[in-house]
Amino acid sequence: MTKPASNLQIDSSRLWDTIHTTAQFGATPKGGVRRLTLGPEDKQVRDWFRTACEKAGLEVQIDGLGNMFALRKGRDMSKPPIGLGSHLDTQPTGGKFDGVLGTLAALEVIRTLNDAGIETELPLCVTNWTNEEGSRYAPAMMGSAAFVGDFTVDDILGREDAAGISVAQALDDIGYRGDKPVGAQKFSGFIELHIEQGPILEAEGKTIGVVEHGQGVLWYDGKITGFESHAGSTPMKHRRDALATLSEIVLAIETIATELGNAVGTVGEAVIAAPSRNVIPGEVTFTIDTRSADAGILDQLDQRIRAAAAGIAAKRKVEVALDLVWRKEPTHFDTTLVGAVENAANALGYQNRRITSGAGHDACNLNTRLPAAMIFVPCKDGVSHNELEDATQSDCAAGANVLLHTVLSLAGVAK
Amino acid sequence: MTKPASNLQIDSSRLWDTIHTTAQFGATPKGGVRRLTLGPEDKQVRDWFRTACEKAGLEVQIDGLGNMFALRKGRDMSKPPIGLGSHLDTQPTGGKFDGVLGTLAALEVIRTLNDAGIETELPLCVTNWTNEEGSRYAPAMMGSAAFVGDFTVDDILGREDAAGISVAQALDDIGYRGDKPVGAQKFSGFIELHIEQGPILEAEGKTIGVVEHGQGVLWYDGKITGFESHAGSTPMKHRRDALATLSEIVLAIETIATELGNAVGTVGEAVIAAPSRNVIPGEVTFTIDTRSADAGILDQLDQRIRAAAAGIAAKRKVEVALDLVWRKEPTHFDTTLVGAVENAANALGYQNRRITSGAGHDACNLNTRLPAAMIFVPCKDGVSHNELEDATQSDCAAGANVLLHTVLSLAGVAK
Repeated sequence: MTKPASNLQIDSSRLWDTIHTTAQFGATPKGGVRRLTLGPEDKQVRDWFRTACEKAGLEVQIDGLGNMFALRKGRDMSKPPIGLGSHLDTQPTGGKFDGVLGTLAALEVIRTLNDAGIETELPLCVTNWTNEEGSRYAPAMMGSAAFVGDFTVDDILGREDAAGISVAQALDDIGYRGDKPVGAQKFSGFIELHIEQGPILEAEGKTIGVVEHGQGVLWYDGKITGFESHAGSTPMKHRRDALATLSEIVLAIETIATELGNAVGTVGEAVIAAPSRNVIPGEVTFTIDTRSADAGILDQLDQRIRAAAAGIAAKRKVEVALDLVWRKEPTHFDTTLVGAVENAANALGYQNRRITSGAGHDACNLNTRLPAAMIFVPCKDGVSHNELEDATQSDCAAGANVLLHTVLSLAGVAK
Repeated sequence: MTKPASNLQIDSSRLWDTIHTTAQFGATPKGGVRRLTLGPEDKQVRDWFRTACEKAGLEVQIDGLGNMFALRKGRDMSKPPIGLGSHLDTQPTGGKFDGVLGTLAALEVIRTLNDAGIETELPLCVTNWTNEEGSRYAPAMMGSAAFVGDFTVDDILGREDAAGISVAQALDDIGYRGDKPVGAQKFSGFIELHIEQGPILEAEGKTIGVVEHGQGVLWYDGKITGFESHAGSTPMKHRRDALATLSEIVLAIETIATELGNAVGTVGEAVIAAPSRNVIPGEVTFTIDTRSADAGILDQLDQRIRAAAAGIAAKRKVEVALDLVWRKEPTHFDTTLVGAVENAANALGYQNRRITSGAGHDACNLNTRLPAAMIFVPCKDGVSHNELEDATQSDCAAGANVLLHTVLSLAGVAK
């Protein structure tokens, strides 16, 4: 006996319990999670996840980089499945929700369909991507990046962590180097549920973010070479102060990103060479992270930041070198899938808004090769990558319900 | 047979050779000197200096903190001597001139008087102060500070270096804990020749700086507490960026010091807690060093810097804590002695100007208890505390000649 699919809701308590069950693998005293990719805690959660998927009747396959694919058959097996999921690894001092919510909500969707006896037309595939966080191995979003061909498998297998352990070794150590070829799994589309990791939904009182775009990124390494001199005996007008130069650059980036709109800009690292209380800083190295969902604005950010730095350098008679170390183009999620997410949110009566993802996600990588979209739910104070990361049971359930109904609309209910 | 004192000149080559002889004690491959106070190289230069003083007929006494006093008798031994000298220790990567010039020029003055057969009315006392630099032991200018009673001898003897070696132990290790009570040596006045350690004389083409004032100092420890969040997903208007806050403070200090005039202000240290390329800095600690030769301006610096920091903190919704860790009042050198330096420079035909010392010196400490003054000569590009520190033979000789004639005018030539 099947319930009508249109009224279907996931089991909020079961999802919440599952989140807290897996949060034990790598639990920290402050209530967060430390579960570095391919480490012993990641093996624990992977083992738990595989067992749970198998109990839910899914066939679990693992590819050569440890990406996990748990298949639920559909009526029409001639078409690739709709994928749903995220990642189970965390930051070194991470929270319970980043990534985990998306993977466990996908499992909850399957359990809900099973309970309701609903068969879908297209098959479904619950996914756990390897090393989304990038804390132990670079690059972040490694599994999905290799999946879409941005890196070769051999390149990734050879990457080493700080202790010199390769990805290949780490996969073998925990028994998660599978035999499915990387990239072999096909998808008709992919939906990722994730916490927002920003403050917008909470600030606006929205439950669901319909993720339309992912920001493109420019990363720079910067170096300012001024002149180190005595803080007491060097008059203000004779100074070539590298920190004062950086200060103008930091504020210029803030102004430029604000003026352009649809952009952010941050100096996250700044180190004075040979700092001393009574010495004018002579050299400062720093990094810039600037982003926009609009490729044209990325270009303007590049031009304006470089022009500002050059102008400040000339005025202060110092050298400023800016080295662009990474450019990632903006993500524009598949309009059909974005529409499906929005329809599901509206049908369920959740307050929602279109939103741009500030952070990178596996779905951004996947979108370069197949139709993808994302669902955001609020997180407390916008905090993520932090043991204080928090989200409500009700918002997590809302996100899972939107995931359920988006997937149902894409996969179809078998008549 | 005595030469007329008014035409007397020091021996420029002998002074230059002496500077380069002592630069061998702790010579670095880059042409600088590493001669940390009370270490083996300091013992080498002290031994050399004691022998040179004794060869010049001086009686060398050493006090309980290793301060060295080399006395040349005058005709009238009822009056305390005119002191002249500086220090022989250096920074870890120091130069050949900082301190050394003042001590060796004092020795050169004695040698010149000896060669000319000139007896002075008042006795003279060539001095080498212990630990002016403060690199191995805090505080800097330790020997002269204890000499004037700012610290007790026991306090100083108990200070330890990074390896846990006390000042007492270090003095005993090199045999320079003398039996003369600290502070027992009396002076009728004290003249210190030093390189400027700043760019003013060189920039203005002056040979001699007649040092009128020494700057007072305010030192602060600062801490900014904003909020760490994701550089991609936190909109510009939601940020509480600790580094952008510091940037405004750095530029405000620059503006305040420039507007007040007769002041400098520097942020020499700034450390982001848990820096990461894609994280908005949530906490920054920093230091401020601000100085003026005018106590009223010091007060204004304090008020305006605190007000600026509070305003920036309120605007950015962050916390800024400023802790004043040191206040040193400005030095106003003895007007008679300053006049004597100026007269000597004019009589010798050297281009000169009144100047304020940006750095602290032993003479600043001494001036709190006895009449003192200083003579500056230019150093290349204003660079000091650096192996690149440099000065010309001609400028060093000019400084020594001004020292000679200042001392002669103060001590008087015995008829």
